[in-house]
Amino acid sequence: MPTWSRNQWYVAAYSAEISHELFARTICGEPLVLYRTTGGDVVALEDRCVHRRYPLSKSHLIDDTIVCGYHGFTYDQCGTCLAAPGQKRIPRTARVPAFTIVEQDSLVWVWIGDNDRSDEALIPRAPWLDSPEYTVVRGMEPLQARYELLVDNLLDLSHETYLHGGYIGTPEVAQTPITTEVDEDAGVIYVSRHMDDAACPPFYAESTGITGRIARWQDIEYHPPCLYLLHSRIAPTGDLPADDGTDDHAFHVEVVYAITPETEHSTHDFWMVARDFALADQHVSDFLAENNRTVVLQDVVALDVLETIVEGEKEHYQELSINIDTGGLAARRLLKRQREAGEAAPEPTAATSTR
Amino acid sequence: MPTWSRNQWYVAAYSAEISHELFARTICGEPLVLYRTTGGDVVALEDRCVHRRYPLSKSHLIDDTIVCGYHGFTYDQCGTCLAAPGQKRIPRTARVPAFTIVEQDSLVWVWIGDNDRSDEALIPRAPWLDSPEYTVVRGMEPLQARYELLVDNLLDLSHETYLHGGYIGTPEVAQTPITTEVDEDAGVIYVSRHMDDAACPPFYAESTGITGRIARWQDIEYHPPCLYLLHSRIAPTGDLPADDGTDDHAFHVEVVYAITPETEHSTHDFWMVARDFALADQHVSDFLAENNRTVVLQDVVALDVLETIVEGEKEHYQELSINIDTGGLAARRLLKRQREAGEAAPEPTAATSTR
Amino acid sequence: MPTWSRNQWYVAAYSAEISHELFARTICGEPLVLYRTTGGDVVALEDRCVHRRYPLSKSHLIDDTIVCGYHGFTYDQCGTCLAAPGQKRIPRTARVPAFTIVEQDSLVWVWIGDNDRSDEALIPRAPWLDSPEYTVVRGMEPLQARYELLVDNLLDLSHETYLHGGYIGTPEVAQTPITTEVDEDAGVIYVSRHMDDAACPPFYAESTGITGRIARWQDIEYHPPCLYLLHSRIAPTGDLPADDGTDDHAFHVEVVYAITPETEHSTHDFWMVARDFALADQHVSDFLAENNRTVVLQDVVALDVLETIVEGEKEHYQELSINIDTGGLAARRLLKRQREAGEAAPEPTAATSTR
Repeated sequence: MPTWSRNQWYVAAYSAEISHELFARTICGEPLVLYRTTGGDVVALEDRCVHRRYPLSKSHLIDDTIVCGYHGFTYDQCGTCLAAPGQKRIPRTARVPAFTIVEQDSLVWVWIGDNDRSDEALIPRAPWLDSPEYTVVRGMEPLQARYELLVDNLLDLSHETYLHGGYIGTPEVAQTPITTEVDEDAGVIYVSRHMDDAACPPFYAESTGITGRIARWQDIEYHPPCLYLLHSRIAPTGDLPADDGTDDHAFHVEVVYAITPETEHSTHDFWMVARDFALADQHVSDFLAENNRTVVLQDVVALDVLETIVEGEKEHYQELSINIDTGGLAARRLLKRQREAGEAAPEPTAATSTR
Repeated sequence: MPTWSRNQWYVAAYSAEISHELFARTICGEPLVLYRTTGGDVVALEDRCVHRRYPLSKSHLIDDTIVCGYHGFTYDQCGTCLAAPGQKRIPRTARVPAFTIVEQDSLVWVWIGDNDRSDEALIPRAPWLDSPEYTVVRGMEPLQARYELLVDNLLDLSHETYLHGGYIGTPEVAQTPITTEVDEDAGVIYVSRHMDDAACPPFYAESTGITGRIARWQDIEYHPPCLYLLHSRIAPTGDLPADDGTDDHAFHVEVVYAITPETEHSTHDFWMVARDFALADQHVSDFLAENNRTVVLQDVVALDVLETIVEGEKEHYQELSINIDTGGLAARRLLKRQREAGEAAPEPTAATSTR
Repeated sequence: MPTWSRNQWYVAAYSAEISHELFARTICGEPLVLYRTTGGDVVALEDRCVHRRYPLSKSHLIDDTIVCGYHGFTYDQCGTCLAAPGQKRIPRTARVPAFTIVEQDSLVWVWIGDNDRSDEALIPRAPWLDSPEYTVVRGMEPLQARYELLVDNLLDLSHETYLHGGYIGTPEVAQTPITTEVDEDAGVIYVSRHMDDAACPPFYAESTGITGRIARWQDIEYHPPCLYLLHSRIAPTGDLPADDGTDDHAFHVEVVYAITPETEHSTHDFWMVARDFALADQHVSDFLAENNRTVVLQDVVALDVLETIVEGEKEHYQELSINIDTGGLAARRLLKRQREAGEAAPEPTAATSTR
């Protein structure tokens, strides 16, 4: 039983990944073939020919049609079959499902569920990813673990101290208590940890040039199921925002994750790091990309191990949760609510989409 | 649940594969050990010692007996135990099942089912494989896919255009309609595609020396479950057989496949190419062997992918079939009939065997 | 369903394997983390943090506490949690199970079952392993087979002739009948094979220097489930023990196996060879270590194959057992008795432990 809601928006790819070539990716157990038309639109079809289910991603793109690599069934960007081998008549049922796509903030969002319900959920925003005021580095690591383990991981940053020591972890992260808030209506979870006098980990020391102790604020904003924002504020100790809210002397890093289930036991772990300083400094870009990728891979190694443990548990295992898990537990609750809503009949009055 | 009938003849090996050495091969889920006696007969026993089921194929052949490599239980070519360790008395039940073997047309056929029912089915013939009027190249590729996917593949050659372009495929194959006939009594399926003005693919251009367009006739004769014959006639366009049926100016290639299930998800894909021209030309032999092996491996790659797709389908998937699938659908029907007959009680009056 | 009794003693490791470092090993399906305290005691805890079940073996040992590598939960050698991240209060239920350990005869024995039942079974002795009168070589090979296949293997040494020819096997082993006795009260199985005029296999010829034929006595003593002792006496043919029981002219080799289930399909195959001659001869030590390891690996290869066969058997397979299997069948019976006793309620009157 999948533990995700199909009736939600998920990040399928970075915009830059999709060109006029066939691209295969499985999202929420659904095999997709994606490509960008000559007109610039992103198309997502089920990656199965209707005839003998050969993967269309192993086929050929001719103009804006896909010609199946097995027997030549030809589909347009709506999934409608235009040609079949050895006969003129095209069967009426020869149609490959097409999925709704929205491109926004440099991300390709897909609606895997019922097409007529895609206005039931808003697509959350991450404007830093596509703004001239920020420089962004990014990557995607395949995770052989269920997406809930990554949600757990990101909602509780106390693990930075132990798993990411020498990169982004310092003792203060695990020591400092968190505050957690849940906006039940909007379905957003906020977890904050403000360290006002902390060691500066290499990730920030090298990128900002700060040499002493820092005020380090971590403000998480999780939009289940897919988008995770970590607003990170770094400044020398004592350097607070002005009373009017301006904060010109601090360094701001927007760490963004898109958490997209691939299968019940694997996840696409998209990570992005946007900064509002040293915008043109390639050394800082390279350093942050390399350093953050190392950190993500440390998580991947740990979560891959946890997946085998969770999968192999003999019976229903009893975890122990403490204060640091408040955000993660809230996330589980909201994800469950989304699943139940997704499986239920469509809502009579739909929410307003951002599109 | 296996989808094959045990009470049918299957090709276990090429005759040339079996010598006075122990040879392991699994046929229809049944592990066999094969060897050729000093007298020249092929023996097939279950590949399990009766004592602790050690594979006999990992044992030693001493004269015409197998001595188990674990504790020395010794078996003759009927599977009868002749010796056991530490005692003189041989238990009466110490007997390894032996399977009925027929060698014919350079193939080793085995009857996996009930030994007393082996006359219920005829062994189909492929005389070109062992005739001085033909030169044969052959091979066997392991396929990690259920045998039905290979049957589907071979019964619908329109895929040559898309999967084997540049080898045996040209546009005319997919464009030209087929005619299909089923001999219900004999249980044979005939699929024909006569292209009277077609491009000559490299496979035939290089081997026959024809430089222009050709008449290309494909006459399939499938004897379920195992033997597939493709009578291929190649001649310059307009060059038809004489009224009396002689056809001396054409090139004839007999493409033969033996489709033998190994397990529910793997198949022995035996392929043979017999020709009635350039009999002693080693270059043509090498070219056809290399070219056909490449084509078979293209199928193997595609079918291995399809197997993972079919195996992973969430529910009963609905395929779409069109005219080109008439032969394949008939094959499924005859295979199902064979399974049901094989599982039913033996027929009171048996068919005449070719043996 | 595991086929072992949890309420028995098993060898978890050699004493020499456990130092002041975290060491992971799964015993009877139970993942353990082991280490030796600064005081010299061996500790065994369940290899799972109570919080999010991260393996403690991938964590850090600080003095005699384990600090979880994910979020820093800290445990003492009893499994009691001493610290948790972000808060002072330690939840009362934060405790990792600790397992009872006894070190004896250079072996680390663990009680996997109910802690209050560890006096229901005696730990059998193997004093040669830790005696100045013997020199010992040893090793451990991972076996991808259920432990019962190794019990079968070791209780019936007639396989030495076929699987270990050229190492420890000669024709006489398979030819010579055995005698088997079972001490039902103590739960010990004795299998003896006295060959009074046998070829001397390389294993003994090279290590003892005997060049002619030998008297070779094999006296097996199996203490289910874990400890297997083979008392091997080697002497020139005709050279018998004195009437008073002294046996100074013979060579004695104590071959010891500890058979510890890892999972239902894998086993820790601990092997030890103790000798009472050439005590300081490094060449003999090296030879015996290398030769016995080769023999063990021959078994591993064979049993790994058998595991795939046994696991893949279609239905309940009927083995054939003969005289040589008397010891193995008795072992199966005693192991079954232990399982049933282990699952039953604890005995009201406990046996006396050797501890």
